[in-house]
Parts: sequence; structure tokens; C-alpha cells
Amino acid sequence: MLKLLFLGDVVGEPGRRAVIETVPRLREERGIDFVVVNGENAANGRGITPKITIDLLRCGIAVITSGDHIWDQKEIVPFIDTEPRLLRPLNYPANTPGAGSIVLETPKGKVGVINVQCRTFMNPPLENPFLAIDAEVKRVREETPIIFVDVHGETTSEKIAMGRFLDGKVSAVCGTHTHTQTADEQIFPGGTAFLCDAGMCGPSESCLGREIQPIIERFLTGRPILYPVARGPVKLLGAIVEIDEPTGRALSIERFSHVYEPPEPAPAPAPVTTAK
Amino acid sequence: MLKLLFLGDVVGEPGRRAVIETVPRLREERGIDFVVVNGENAANGRGITPKITIDLLRCGIAVITSGDHIWDQKEIVPFIDTEPRLLRPLNYPANTPGAGSIVLETPKGKVGVINVQCRTFMNPPLENPFLAIDAEVKRVREETPIIFVDVHGETTSEKIAMGRFLDGKVSAVCGTHTHTQTADEQIFPGGTAFLCDAGMCGPSESCLGREIQPIIERFLTGRPILYPVARGPVKLLGAIVEIDEPTGRALSIERFSHVYEPPEPAPAPAPVTTAK
Amino acid sequence: MLKLLFLGDVVGEPGRRAVIETVPRLREERGIDFVVVNGENAANGRGITPKITIDLLRCGIAVITSGDHIWDQKEIVPFIDTEPRLLRPLNYPANTPGAGSIVLETPKGKVGVINVQCRTFMNPPLENPFLAIDAEVKRVREETPIIFVDVHGETTSEKIAMGRFLDGKVSAVCGTHTHTQTADEQIFPGGTAFLCDAGMCGPSESCLGREIQPIIERFLTGRPILYPVARGPVKLLGAIVEIDEPTGRALSIERFSHVYEPPEPAPAPAPVTTAK
Amino acid sequence: MLKLLFLGDVVGEPGRRAVIETVPRLREERGIDFVVVNGENAANGRGITPKITIDLLRCGIAVITSGDHIWDQKEIVPFIDTEPRLLRPLNYPANTPGAGSIVLETPKGKVGVINVQCRTFMNPPLENPFLAIDAEVKRVREETPIIFVDVHGETTSEKIAMGRFLDGKVSAVCGTHTHTQTADEQIFPGGTAFLCDAGMCGPSESCLGREIQPIIERFLTGRPILYPVARGPVKLLGAIVEIDEPTGRALSIERFSHVYEPPEPAPAPAPVTTAK
Ligand SMILES: [Fe+2]
Ligand SMILES: [Fe+2]
Ligand SMILES: [Fe+2]
Ligand SMILES: [Fe+2]
Ligand SMILES: [Fe+2]
Ligand SMILES: [Fe+2]
Ligand SMILES: [Fe+2]
Ligand SMILES: [Fe+2]
Repeated sequence: MLKLLFLGDVVGEPGRRAVIETVPRLREERGIDFVVVNGENAANGRGITPKITIDLLRCGIAVITSGDHIWDQKEIVPFIDTEPRLLRPLNYPANTPGAGSIVLETPKGKVGVINVQCRTFMNPPLENPFLAIDAEVKRVREETPIIFVDVHGETTSEKIAMGRFLDGKVSAVCGTHTHTQTADEQIFPGGTAFLCDAGMCGPSESCLGREIQPIIERFLTGRPILYPVARGPVKLLGAIVEIDEPTGRALSIERFSHVYEPPEPAPAPAPVTTAK
Repeated sequence: MLKLLFLGDVVGEPGRRAVIETVPRLREERGIDFVVVNGENAANGRGITPKITIDLLRCGIAVITSGDHIWDQKEIVPFIDTEPRLLRPLNYPANTPGAGSIVLETPKGKVGVINVQCRTFMNPPLENPFLAIDAEVKRVREETPIIFVDVHGETTSEKIAMGRFLDGKVSAVCGTHTHTQTADEQIFPGGTAFLCDAGMCGPSESCLGREIQPIIERFLTGRPILYPVARGPVKLLGAIVEIDEPTGRALSIERFSHVYEPPEPAPAPAPVTTAK
Repeated sequence: MLKLLFLGDVVGEPGRRAVIETVPRLREERGIDFVVVNGENAANGRGITPKITIDLLRCGIAVITSGDHIWDQKEIVPFIDTEPRLLRPLNYPANTPGAGSIVLETPKGKVGVINVQCRTFMNPPLENPFLAIDAEVKRVREETPIIFVDVHGETTSEKIAMGRFLDGKVSAVCGTHTHTQTADEQIFPGGTAFLCDAGMCGPSESCLGREIQPIIERFLTGRPILYPVARGPVKLLGAIVEIDEPTGRALSIERFSHVYEPPEPAPAPAPVTTAK
Repeated sequence: MLKLLFLGDVVGEPGRRAVIETVPRLREERGIDFVVVNGENAANGRGITPKITIDLLRCGIAVITSGDHIWDQKEIVPFIDTEPRLLRPLNYPANTPGAGSIVLETPKGKVGVINVQCRTFMNPPLENPFLAIDAEVKRVREETPIIFVDVHGETTSEKIAMGRFLDGKVSAVCGTHTHTQTADEQIFPGGTAFLCDAGMCGPSESCLGREIQPIIERFLTGRPILYPVARGPVKLLGAIVEIDEPTGRALSIERFSHVYEPPEPAPAPAPVTTAK
């Protein structure tokens, strides 16, 4: 049995710190074999940098997935081809830097991870994610039946349809992007574990990891405003999936939620618009 | 202490039957004082009819909320002004049939219910929901501090911002529209209970209550297709909120999830496009 | 020199009648060699039927293009594979019924027509139109340099980018979908004629071919309402492009606008939701 | 008879220079009484600054309208209340800085200008523009029947519906936002002149005023890229409306198109993201 931990979108410095300090301990205490984290908001809420990628991988994360914010920090474009453990959504056109899937060797066998992005209410428009993943799953299954999919999308209908479409073909499908964990964890009839959205790793007293008041102000006035990443205790949200190695079937899925209390006042967040 | 049960979007005949057969028992067994249900998909998945409204109210539901599907069945337009317990979103322009809030007498005091609709990725575009509800909450609070809000919307950011905006002003804010229950139930610092989405009352083996295969087909092909309401066991999803009557503060919020097994084969669903 | 007439979206019975009675005369009077018409709204404003397709082709139209309304009438799905002169947007997934391009023999040489759909604010989401047309133009150019492209889309930015992208590769690019003719007809530096939107063939006293009052009502109230096709004099809008056969370069582009007065009271329009 | 010139969205330094050098000459040569210009893209393509506002007003422009880019340059927020001749869309919530209409004295009588923003595919979501303008037109008509409306919006349906809605209540309705002039100039039955989109004042060899290649690149790759304002000859696009002063009725509407050749190489554009 392989135990996989997936954590949703890491938001800014508070989210990174919480993940980096918690993942090593979690791996030990909970007997986690493989950690996947969505990092699309790790750089002050917008994208991810090479340095942050390295910091996250160093703490014991095997693969970093992403989504619509993947290109927000421009240093990531030349970097992504040098680090295959950082995924961008699979369904970009051919010749896009980076890759949408990876297969890694582990002591318990090969593990495949695929990252795909939905299209409903998402920008930019990408190629059909259902067709793209259908082909990719076939390729990855030639190497291993243990496959984890991060489906990054806005609507429940597209993410649930993706989970149902992949039922029996992959081990687990977890959604990301809404930053809010759903309570629909289940194993579909074909043996695929599913959670519509994993939630985020970011400050609890926040609106999707950002300070609350500016977001409310925006909705009240319709005028632009800066949304700094919030501070304070951080919730790590995601799922733990137990997978039968020979078949790749999910044995269990459990929602994961853990509160991290920063040991001292967090440093002031970097200005919102800076690409660190 | 007043105990309120809120159930998310009732989908079609399977959802209605499950609600109608379960609510009376639930009220007794769980000591529920007040039941609110979102009925925007009760008529074969699209809107609600006068007859369905009456059936739902008769089984012990106090107030029916709705959302973007409120006008799907055209008999509802003349009917809604005759039945104040069926709400349409508050933030329609003045002179729209129906109302977006109601205050009802109960043995434990007056209870206010408000229904508001978000704007991000929602159709039709309505008036600013934050400004509309701010004024409405002030009016309702002159009658009672016990106020329940159904915020019907697509994005977590707008629904969470609404919950935070109303913190300390109402008893509870629950979201609807995504048909997927979230796992973020909590009481905000000001005493307002919150759940980003209540989920739905519809068939479990489904995509938002609809048959799974047609939805997958639509995403694969991009071509129109009928989406019949699914059958089989029904999940009733929502929340139970305990409210302190004198202050209107939430004492607790608990996610609610209950499986209803139809006693015999459900009748064939009506054709998808028919307005029953 | 080959003279091509393109007419924008034909709306309902008034648009069809105007086109069918005017095209034969126009071909003669103006020396038109080749007529392309967008037919996506020909069937009472929604889609096109096999019978209407045949009627339009019989009056001297060589190719009918379409757009997001192509599948509105369900008889078109089995029919489209039998009539290659009715195009659907090119950038649907493989295995979609119909085709997005055609090459026809004419006395002045082979003429290629391609129909492609944009993605910004368009439904359903299709595959990348720039990549799809790039490959298709290469295929068609092996047969002929005379190529006309109907780019069906909402935004000026995507349609202009498409025109510029194809500059030097095709003879002409005309947009459709907004039903409003633009005044930016021009020949780009590489020799490709361009018009951002051709406009429609539908009643002048209308809102995109529909009766005006219901559309205003919809914007005022946010409630659903039927939009019947309007009546009265019809404007035929489009463009005439003169093309140099050996090179496929556009020699001229002229906006086309012609008013058709129905000879007698038009028959009452069919009910809006009926598939005739 | 009052002769009004309206010019569409001024794009960056090339657009400003062309407008500033051309408007004084035009006023004289064409006998223009009143000039209205949309300035929402005047500051390097994004918003407008106080200094640019002043420069534009000094050259003989009476009123500057705007749209969704009005707040892009943050100095405009405190400034807009000090300069009533710079309008923001009318249908923002109450208490928004600035105003959506103005009435100015001229030698030929009072002239009212109203700026309103559509909602379909527009961000941020604003209040119902039809209801907002209905009330505003009533107020302005108490002062003068000569009223010009800039309706800033994406779709032809919403802009045409607005024009028809205002027919007989104002002198002229011109659309903006698509940066592409439409060819549907007309006087509606009630005496209101209409043009669905005025077009822009920006470089001709461009995509909406921006360099062409980056825009194509964006559509090809789906990855972010900078879009600098283009250079070279500038087209000034808009409309000239002749208005009968006593009644406010439009006597004529003519599309306006004028090419401005910069006398020397334009200076290199400022970096795209800078707020000058
Ligand atoms: Fe995210
Ligand atoms: Fe995202
Ligand atoms: Fe619903
Ligand atoms: Fe809904
Ligand atoms: Fe059309
Ligand atoms: Fe269309
Ligand atoms: Fe603009
Ligand atoms: Fe704009």
C-alpha cells in the first residue's frame, strides 16, 4: 500500500513556511510515501519562482503541480524545462515549455502524476482537457498503474466529469483552484478516489489566502485594489489517498486538514506586485 | 436555542421525493425548528413550479430559496407574488415579481431568510449583491436578529467575501449553486456561521444530479446533448445551525449529509425539456 | 480575377428569403464568381436544417459556413457528413461530424473555404483556432492559393489577430457572429483582404435580427423572454473580394450592403423554440 | 445646428499626439462645436492620468469619457472629483468618485454627455446600465435636450439595445471598447443617431492599438506576454453628429476616419507596466 498526500494551492510565504515545516514531520508521523503539492500561488500569491520550487522539493515534496498562475513569475519559463518535478497543465499546445506529467521511481514502485486544467470560466483557453488526459493516461499506464491527477478548475461540473471520466483509469483525482476544500471525498465504482477540491495551504483568516477587507472592498466598489496575502495561522488542506500498488486502485481517501501556527510574527509580506 | 436545517439545491423528482419523505422525520428526530431548502432545480432540474412549491412547503419546509434558475418554469412568474415563502434572489431590479427576503413567526421568535445571488460567472447580471444585502439586513434586523442567508453563486471568493461581510450581522450564511458541499463549515469571529456551499439534494451517482455519461460526452465533443436527471440513491446535503435567539449568534454549525434510498424503482424521469 | 461575395449570418425566414431572391440577381449584375454565406442562424435564428441548407445551395451559394449555432437543429448532425458544402468550425476535436474546410472546382480554378471559431467569450470551448487553421491552410494551399476564411468570433482582438496571422497565407478573412458590419475593410501588407465582421442578412429594424422590444426587456429585467425574429425590410451585409487567381492575393475588398424589401407581408414567424 | 465630433478610445502616446495635433484643426476646418473623446486607454494603453486629462482638455476637447480601464492609473481616483469633464461610467454604485454625466454651456446651448458601461463580458460587474441611464437621461433632459451618450461595451446586442432604448430620448448614442469602427451609422425612427462602435484613435498597423506580433503570440501559446502600444501612422476614428438644438434630434450622423502621420519617428513607448 502506497500512501500519498496531496496538498492544495500553497499561498505565499505563510503557506510555504507552513508546508516546509510540516511536510517532513507529516511524512514520518503518518507514514506518507509520496507528497504532491499545488504550487501555483506560492510566490506571494502569484505563480512560483525557481527558488521556491527548489525549497519545496527539498522539504520532501515529490512533485509540484500548478494551474492558471503557472507563468505569473517570468523566471519560471526558462526554468521549467530544467525541473521536471514542477508540472504545468498538460493541455497546453505542443512546444509549450515544461510538461504536464511525470513518472517517478519510489521504493514502492513507479508513481505517475498528471496536471490538467479545465476550461469553463478559466483563462487562458487551453486544449480539450478530456482528450488530452485520455491520451496521457494511456502513455503513463504503460509505465505504472499508480497515477495521481490534479485537475485545476473553477466549476464542480467539469471537475466531477473529469473524475468520473478517469474512474478506473487512475488512482486518484483531486481538484484545485477554488482554494476551498469540498466534502465529497469518495471512491468511485471503478476504484478511483476523488475529491472535487483539495482546498489551499494558506492563512485561515482570509479570503482564499488574501486579506479579507480588500476583497470585500472590491466587491462593494468595483474598483481595483491590492490584495495582500493574509497572515496568522495557516490551514494545510488536501487529501491522503491509500493506493494498492499492483492495481493502482485507491483503497481509501481521507480529507486532510491541519493547522500550522507560525512560531513568531511572520515577516511583513513582500509588496503584492513584485516578482520576487 | 433555535435549530435550523438548510438543504442545498433539490434536483428533480428524485430530490423532491427524498426531501418530502425525509424532512418530517428529520424535524422530529433532530429537533429541527426551521427548515430552509433551495428549490431552484426542483422541476426536473430546471426551476420550480407552483405545484412543487406547494408540495415542498407542505412537508414542513418553512422557506424555499432559489437562484439563477428561478424563472425557468414560466408559471412561476405570476405565482411568486402569491407565495412569499418562495424567494427569488434579492438583488433583482425594483419591480421584479417576488421578493428576496421574508420574516416568519415561529414558536421561538421571528426568523428572517434572505436569498442573494453572486455576479462572478453568473447569468443574468444582477445588481451589486453586497450593497443590496447590506440594506436588506438592516431592514430585517429591525424585526429579528435571527437571519439566515442563502448566497447563490459560482465562485468561492465571492461567497466567502459575502460571509465575511455579513459576519456579526446575520446568524448564518450558506452558499448554493455548485451542488457540491464544501468542508469549510465554521463560525466567524463575529458569530456568523458559514458554509461556502451546502451541496445538493439529488442522486449520488451523478454529475450535479444529472446522468454522468451525457455530461462527459458534452465535455469530450463540445456538442449539445440532453442531460437527464439521474436516478438511484439520493444524498441530502446541507447544514444544521444552532442559533441563540436573543442575539441571533450561531452557536454551532454542522455539515449535514443523509442518504435516502428510494423504496422502489423511481419512475422514469420526465423528458428533459418539458415544463411540468 | 475571381470575384467572391461573402454574406454574414442569415437570420430566419426573412434573411433566407432575401438571400434566395437576391443572390441570383447579384451574381449576374455584379459578375460574382463564388458566393459564401454564413448560415448559422438560418433556421428561425437558431442553427440550420437540411432543407434550408439545400434551399440556400440551390440559389447559387457555393459554400455555407457556420459557427456556435451549428448544432442547434439536431437533424443537422447526421446530415452534415452528407453535404460537404455546409461547414462547421474547423477547430472541433477529431471525429466531429462534418468538416471545417472545402475546396471546390470553379471555372476560374479551385477555391478553398475555411470556417474557424474563436474562443474568447465563445461557447463551447474549442481547440486553439490559430494552430488548427495554420495546419489547415497548409493543406488547402497544396491545392489552391485562393482561400476564403470565415472567422466566427465575439472579440475584435481575436478576429483581427487571426486576420493578421493569416496575412499572406490566404486571400481573405472575414469575421462573423456579432451581426454588425465593421468599417475596417482593408488589404493587409501581405495581400490578404480583411473585414472584422461582415454583419448579417436579417431585418433592419431589429436587434441582431430579433425583435427589439424583447431584447430591451431582457436587459431591463434580467428575466428570460422569447426573442422572435423581426420582420420588414432586410439588410444583406457582407463583402465583395476580388482575388488574383494565380497568386491568391486580394486585389480589392469592398463592404457590401443591400436592402431587400419583401414584396408582400412576410408570413408570421414560426414559434421561437420550434425546430422547423 | 450643433456639430459634435466624437472620437473613440485614444491609445497611448501615439493616439494622444494625433488627437492633440488634429482636433484644433478639425474644429476649424469642419466647423465642429463640441468634441467628446474616450480616453480610457490614453496612458500607454491603460487608463488615463491627471496630466493626460489636462493635455486633452486643453486641445479643445470638451468632455473625456472612459470605460473599464478608468481606474488603471491610481492617481485618477483622487483627481476625478476635481475634474468633472472626465467621466467614469455612470452605473457604478453611489459614492463612487467622479460622475457619469455632465452638462456644459456652449454658445449653441447646453450639451449633456453621459457615459455608461455594459455588463455582458465586461469587468467589473456594474449596476444595470439601462435602469441607470433611464434615470440619468430624465435628469439631464430637465436641463437640455442635446445629449450625447458613450456606451462602453463588448457586445453588439447590448449596445444596440441601449441605442434603441434611448431612441427619442437623446441626440446620439455611440459605442466604444472594441476599438473597431462599425459601419451601421444610422438615425433611429425617434431621431437618435447611432453607431455601434466608434473605433479608436491609435496606430493603424496594430491589433487594437497594440503591436501585432505579441497578440498573435498570446493566442498561439496561451502564455502571458507584454503588449506594447504600436507605432506609425494613427487612425482617428469616430463620428460627426449634427444636432438640432431646440429638439435635440440628430439631423445627420457620419462616420469619421482620419489618418495622422507622425511628423518624425515617435519616441520609444514607455514600458508597458509603468504608470506614468
Ligand atoms: Fe490557486
Ligand atoms: Fe488557479
Ligand atoms: Fe442549482
Ligand atoms: Fe444555480
Ligand atoms: Fe450569428
Ligand atoms: Fe454565432
Ligand atoms: Fe478601450
Ligand atoms: Fe474598454
